[in-house]
Formats: sequence, C-alpha cells, structure tokens
Amino acid sequence: MMKNNQEPPARDAIGRLAQEFNKLPGIGPKSAQRITFYLLRASAEQARELADSITTLKEKIALCSVCYNVTEHDPCPICASGQRDAGLICIVEQPQDIVAIEHTGVYKGLYHVLHGALSPAEGVGADDIRIRELTDRLKDGTVREVILATNTNLEGEQTAMYLSRVIEPLGIRVTRLARGLPYGTELEYADDVTLTRAIEGRQEF
Amino acid sequence: MMKNNQEPPARDAIGRLAQEFNKLPGIGPKSAQRITFYLLRASAEQARELADSITTLKEKIALCSVCYNVTEHDPCPICASGQRDAGLICIVEQPQDIVAIEHTGVYKGLYHVLHGALSPAEGVGADDIRIRELTDRLKDGTVREVILATNTNLEGEQTAMYLSRVIEPLGIRVTRLARGLPYGTELEYADDVTLTRAIEGRQEF
Repeated sequence: MMKNNQEPPARDAIGRLAQEFNKLPGIGPKSAQRITFYLLRASAEQARELADSITTLKEKIALCSVCYNVTEHDPCPICASGQRDAGLICIVEQPQDIVAIEHTGVYKGLYHVLHGALSPAEGVGADDIRIRELTDRLKDGTVREVILATNTNLEGEQTAMYLSRVIEPLGIRVTRLARGLPYGTELEYADDVTLTRAIEGRQEF
Repeated sequence: MMKNNQEPPARDAIGRLAQEFNKLPGIGPKSAQRITFYLLRASAEQARELADSITTLKEKIALCSVCYNVTEHDPCPICASGQRDAGLICIVEQPQDIVAIEHTGVYKGLYHVLHGALSPAEGVGADDIRIRELTDRLKDGTVREVILATNTNLEGEQTAMYLSRVIEPLGIRVTRLARGLPYGTELEYADDVTLTRAIEGRQEF
C-alpha cells in the first residue's frame, strides 16, 4: 500500500519503453530497464537511429514472391542473381536460417522459406506453411535437387519427412543436411540423439 | 572474396536495425539479429509502439532541476511531493538507483543524483558530477541528514569518502548504506571484501 504513493519518477515514458523492450525475446525486466536508462544517456541521434530503423524495417521489408525470404526488393537479391544455381533449392524454416547458411559462403543455390514447421501438437499443418508455394516452384522442371535444411528437432524432422514424400515422386533428388557431432564436441558431453545419429551416419575416413 | 557476392538478402533495413540493437548494453550480434527477426514477424503496432516509446523518451524526459533525477515534469514528482521528508537526502550515482530504492518502499526522504562517481583513473573529478549542485542544496539548512548511497565499488567508496569530507563540516549528519552480507548468502561463497566488512560492521544481536 505504501508503494502506491512511491511510484518512481517519470514512470510514464521510461516505464513504457522498458515495457516495450521487455516484450522482445531474451530481454527480461532488468535488461529492459538497463537499456532504457542507457538510451536516456545516449545521444539523441543514436535513439533516433534506433527508432527510425525499427520503423523502416516494417515499412520496407516484404516477402520475396519467389522464395518468401524477407527482402526490400521483389524478387529478392538471391532469386534475382544470375550467379546462383537455379537447379538447387535449399528449404529452410525461417529467413534467419538463410543468413546462417549464406554466412558459410559455400552454398550457391536458391532458397525456399517455409515460415514454420509442421507441428501436429501445435496445430500447424501443411497448409499453414509455404509448402504449396514450394511445390508450385518445382513444377517447371528447373530444379534437380532440393536440400532439406529444416531444424533437427522433432518438428523439423517431421517437416523434412513430409517434404521428402511430396517431392521425391516429382523425380527431384532430395537431400538433408548432415546430422552428427558439431565442431569442437567432446564425446562425453554429446547427447544420445546426436551420438546415435553420428554413429548411424558414419563415413569412410 | 566469395562472400561479397553473397550478402544476405535485405541486408540494408534488417542489418541496420540489428546493428542498432547491437549497440545497446547486453545485446550481442546474435541477440540483435534474433530481436530484429522477431520484430519482422511482430505486428506493425508492436513495432510502432517500440519506436514511438524510444522517440517519446528522448523528447519528454529531462533532469529535475532540484535533484537531477530523470523526469517528465520539473521538479520531479518526488521533489514536488509534500509527503517526503525534505530534511533527508539520499545521494545516488544514477537515476536507476532511485528506482531500486523506491521499490523497497522504506525510504521517505528526497534524492540527489550525481550522474557518475569520482574516478581519478578515468579522469572524472568533482566538477564532472553534480556535487556543486548538491552543496548548493545543502546551504539553506533544511537538510539534517545525508545518506551516501553510492555503489560499494572503488569509485563509489571514493565518492562517498569525498562527499563526507565536504558535507560533515556543514554540520549535517552523514550516513552510508550498510555494507555486509547480502540476503541469502552462504558464507562459504562470500568474497573476502564483503566478509571483512560484515565482520567489521557486526551488530548486537
């Protein structure tokens, strides 16, 4: 009851921003407050840059009508590039997966973003993610190989399984990113599933 | 060299926002990217709320001309309140320290925000923080006690020491927040400095 008379000063603008930051992934109430007070001390320019960037993001970014990656231009730079192998499509769950794969610098094909994974438990079916758009892309016979790069969790594996059953009948090669021990693993700390897959998928040395 | 041709799509708006988030305290490049992609999926309203809150913060928040806390109204609600004990001033380093103290609900006096601490190592002297403004406040004889609530690190202790030397000659009582074991501590994990202070500051039971 005492506390009602002791609201921290300037709770409106400061509290409101802290609350908004607290909604973002990985930012708890303490971090949200820390960031808010940081911005109070930061230059007006830095705060404006941040606010503008958020606004611009929502204004400028749309989905590529070919691969459904996020993009400022449609089709996206990858789909529009003459340098990429149009016979190869890598299927991912989310746009950020493309960032990770592009960062390796080893992949030269195109992408297709599902925007999710099949999850009967959460009621996500084949019509809820962009599978129809994928099969439409595969119709013209350009694509010779599809790489399933969905996550290696339950939903990702289910989705990969489903897609392989849909795509293989089209006479297109279906591959899956290799499962096994991640770089730098100490065997004794590897989990059972990873270790099982690493054994089952063992290769000639 | 390969990577130059493989910039992730829509790097402009997405990359720019991720970069801005990366500048905030406690947000690394991975978290910045995660938040950015989260905002891409979030409602336009949520993104607008966040951007507006940032802009509003910098527009509305100023420093209280009495205690130098951050506030939307000058003087701040605490200084303007008739319910607080004007004979008692708690001196803190940063505005967020006031939030923490107010949250306890036990303090009924006013505040003074130094906006920093003395740090010869970093070239922060008495003229760089709001000490002059404090001594000006103490001149009219209203204040009977000053609580030094600077941090318990080196800079905070130095600052408390300096302030006590400046304020005591004015005939004002100078106290310091108690140092000792924090709530829930297991003795075996307490650090030497904390334990030393807890022993030196032991009280009748």
